[in-house]
Amino acid sequence: MARNMLNRRERRLATVGTVRQMPFGNVVNRYTPIAIMSADEIESIHLASLRLLAEIGIEVLHEESRSLLKSAGAEVDASNLRVRFDPSMVEEKIRTAPSRFTLQARNPARNLTVGDGSLIFASTGGPAFVHDMDRGRRAGNYADMCDYIRVVHQLNVIHQEGGCPCEPTDLQPDSRHLDFYHAAIRLTDKNWQCWALGGYRVEDAIEMLSITLGQTREQLRENPATLTIINSNSPLRLDVPMGEGLCAMSRAGQPIALTPFTLSGAMSPVTIAGALTQQNAEALALITLAQVVSPGAPVLYGGFTSNVDMRTGSPAFGTPEYAKAQIASGQLARRYNIPFRSSNVTASNAVDVQAAYESGMSLWSTIMGGVSLIEHAAGWLEGGLTASFEKLILDAEMLQMMRSFLEPVRVDEDSLAVDTISEVGPGGHFFGTGHTLARFENAFYEPMLSDWRNFENWSESGARSGTDRANAIWKDLLRTYEQPPLDPGIDEALSEYVARRKEEIHPGRD
Amino acid sequence: MARNMLNRRERRLATVGTVRQMPFGNVVNRYTPIAIMSADEIESIHLASLRLLAEIGIEVLHEESRSLLKSAGAEVDASNLRVRFDPSMVEEKIRTAPSRFTLQARNPARNLTVGDGSLIFASTGGPAFVHDMDRGRRAGNYADMCDYIRVVHQLNVIHQEGGCPCEPTDLQPDSRHLDFYHAAIRLTDKNWQCWALGGYRVEDAIEMLSITLGQTREQLRENPATLTIINSNSPLRLDVPMGEGLCAMSRAGQPIALTPFTLSGAMSPVTIAGALTQQNAEALALITLAQVVSPGAPVLYGGFTSNVDMRTGSPAFGTPEYAKAQIASGQLARRYNIPFRSSNVTASNAVDVQAAYESGMSLWSTIMGGVSLIEHAAGWLEGGLTASFEKLILDAEMLQMMRSFLEPVRVDEDSLAVDTISEVGPGGHFFGTGHTLARFENAFYEPMLSDWRNFENWSESGARSGTDRANAIWKDLLRTYEQPPLDPGIDEALSEYVARRKEEIHPGRD
Repeated sequence: MARNMLNRRERRLATVGTVRQMPFGNVVNRYTPIAIMSADEIESIHLASLRLLAEIGIEVLHEESRSLLKSAGAEVDASNLRVRFDPSMVEEKIRTAPSRFTLQARNPARNLTVGDGSLIFASTGGPAFVHDMDRGRRAGNYADMCDYIRVVHQLNVIHQEGGCPCEPTDLQPDSRHLDFYHAAIRLTDKNWQCWALGGYRVEDAIEMLSITLGQTREQLRENPATLTIINSNSPLRLDVPMGEGLCAMSRAGQPIALTPFTLSGAMSPVTIAGALTQQNAEALALITLAQVVSPGAPVLYGGFTSNVDMRTGSPAFGTPEYAKAQIASGQLARRYNIPFRSSNVTASNAVDVQAAYESGMSLWSTIMGGVSLIEHAAGWLEGGLTASFEKLILDAEMLQMMRSFLEPVRVDEDSLAVDTISEVGPGGHFFGTGHTLARFENAFYEPMLSDWRNFENWSESGARSGTDRANAIWKDLLRTYEQPPLDPGIDEALSEYVARRKEEIHPGRD
Repeated sequence: MARNMLNRRERRLATVGTVRQMPFGNVVNRYTPIAIMSADEIESIHLASLRLLAEIGIEVLHEESRSLLKSAGAEVDASNLRVRFDPSMVEEKIRTAPSRFTLQARNPARNLTVGDGSLIFASTGGPAFVHDMDRGRRAGNYADMCDYIRVVHQLNVIHQEGGCPCEPTDLQPDSRHLDFYHAAIRLTDKNWQCWALGGYRVEDAIEMLSITLGQTREQLRENPATLTIINSNSPLRLDVPMGEGLCAMSRAGQPIALTPFTLSGAMSPVTIAGALTQQNAEALALITLAQVVSPGAPVLYGGFTSNVDMRTGSPAFGTPEYAKAQIASGQLARRYNIPFRSSNVTASNAVDVQAAYESGMSLWSTIMGGVSLIEHAAGWLEGGLTASFEKLILDAEMLQMMRSFLEPVRVDEDSLAVDTISEVGPGGHFFGTGHTLARFENAFYEPMLSDWRNFENWSESGARSGTDRANAIWKDLLRTYEQPPLDPGIDEALSEYVARRKEEIHPGRD
């Protein structure tokens, strides 16, 4: 019987490829989100943040944002660029933000839903460095960026490319976004995040999506096809590039995760309640601005509150404070009925036990806290300075486990199995029962990275650690990667667009 | 300012010793436990398990248990040793189990509360092997057992010794419990778990506790001082040694965690609902027996439902199925108002990322599922075959993080910090504010194992992984260990007791 089971299983798995993994699919959290604060406490944070916005306000360095907010009724002090918000204006504006929206991918089977209990797992975006066990840590570069996107494409549990895995520092700073966009379009058919550092980078993303999807800007506004992260410059400041990016995204109807970077003890108060108050004030101000730019603009409430190590000033991630702040942020986002964005983070410098338990703290608190989009869901290392190939695999395994955990347990006559337990009786075993044989192939989560063999078999096959196995897995995924088909006419049009724009951005170079 | 902060911090830490850790203390979970099943689904499992107990019953190999259950109204079939329970009898008997009880330690500052939201973290109990990075894996032995208990004593986050870290296979099998008990009493002043494999091992524990604490058996019954785990032999069987141990413990008023070992797909149905039904039937039968032996006997509802790898038959731990089963078990235990026992488990063969994420799945699901006692909370490796010194430290760090996570966020005028945020204003920083300076020393969780330094500093100091650091920590704790004082008269009386009992158990040996 055991032999027969093995054969049947292997036949099924052979069809999946060399790395066993879950299929691409929508993930829905049907469990009640965790709450760590009372409704009264959430209301206290809400009211304190409204008081901050009314009394102190936000320094808005971007002129267009200031004048838009002024027209909408905010009080602008031209002497110090301070914008103060009447509480009723904030309450009114944030009400137009949708609780749910969709995101197109160039492969429609990979379209995404944001909100309504759906979860989106995005790969890490923005690191300056890249790392793997064989070659160590190095500056971000175009070749590694492309390989990373290839592995992201191969990992079914990742829904979205998260906005460039590592900065391609070997390319021109002012035009490398074009190279990233073109690579993201070519190398994966998943949705990808664009850059919002300045309005022209947003415009280029939208133009290239228009070419890729064969849709007008108006069509893209109705069916958004990219997303970006906008960080306030905590405390209480919005700079020019981020202001430009915000306005360009919202005008184009593309969603933004508005994410204050409130490190408790450094850029925000040393108390978590204080850091959350400041986070909430900044998030509400940016959400208000997005709604002023374009009522109904899709946004996410971003939470990133963590703390610094008070001995060294180093940021800490995946800490107990981080977990509590994320769960409270989810409660705040639900109060506003706006999808919640959080992250899978660690301060570890290696793909080791610390990376695993800090990411575990992040994933449990964000997912059970009701998150809609997990940015950096896979790959982030070293407080976000590095994209690691092995961490990408480690995180993909943890994401698969959480996805399986979110599938509710079926409870019915058949699954309660009273008749089967009766049939087996005291002292028997269930391996050979009809109930088992009819269900064993899909009964349990099948790991990609975990090794469940006994000590002897594990030792004989090399006693490889989880990190060693992750190294083999990403190399295998890269080796078996096949570029998803893209119409050659579209690819050529994209190449022409990129060439033209590079010539405009830095004439005569390249 | 940063320099000043560093100095103040170091002065405070110098008083704690070489390894920074939290003080010993009571841990209370004030958050609402997670639920993954509806009340109706829990009721379906309850009713299905009562049907199993009425129709199939349990095979009880222990004669005294059978006759006690018969006197209490159960139906006993002498031809196959089957005991069937009327649902109303089960409902009536389990009602006498207390929802809360206490456990004495020889140091009263380490007394424990079971139930009422309190959490007890017990070190791993029962492994056959022991492991550390320097010496590798070896058979359990007396010297390692003692060293392990010493490190358990040193780790403040561990509340209870979990019933012998590794089997001292170099000692006589039928009397080594005496050596373990004596070592546990000498080497730590924390509460410790006894062995229930046969009634005489329980009796020896109680006699030795009576000597240690200077209390009569009647006093110990009123104030229990040890605890044990009783496993049913799933499916649906109670063997002689476990039956003896159960009766002896309950008669003596010492608490038992009644824990079916229901591996889904092997000793229980391949469906999680079915495995939970069988777990619940076995747990209710054993709880009923304990209450028949002694109404009001302290018990815990034990959940251990996990699954096997259907390809190899290997048990898997810390899986998504395990997490769901633990949360559902917590819901069942709360339905009966009985404290819930669960575990921190992994199938990994190394102290690697897999060990960390499987333990992370275990800790989040059990703690947020409302657990009262986490057995194997620290140290378990290889599906419980091995006690690892490095895993002990890894788990202690994760337990500290969960303990810190369970401290609710304070939300009040002071912590909301609106005035401080106003004082700092846009673009400032919070390092030097009075609000920060008054709070920074205890503001955030301080890790024992995590390294939050930046990549450069971490690399310069040897680029040690978390597992390497865990190795240094347990050796440091062992090096600085001091045996807690024990009255020499008591120790001598214990030695005499052990010598006399060994002579009784195997005359002329030793």
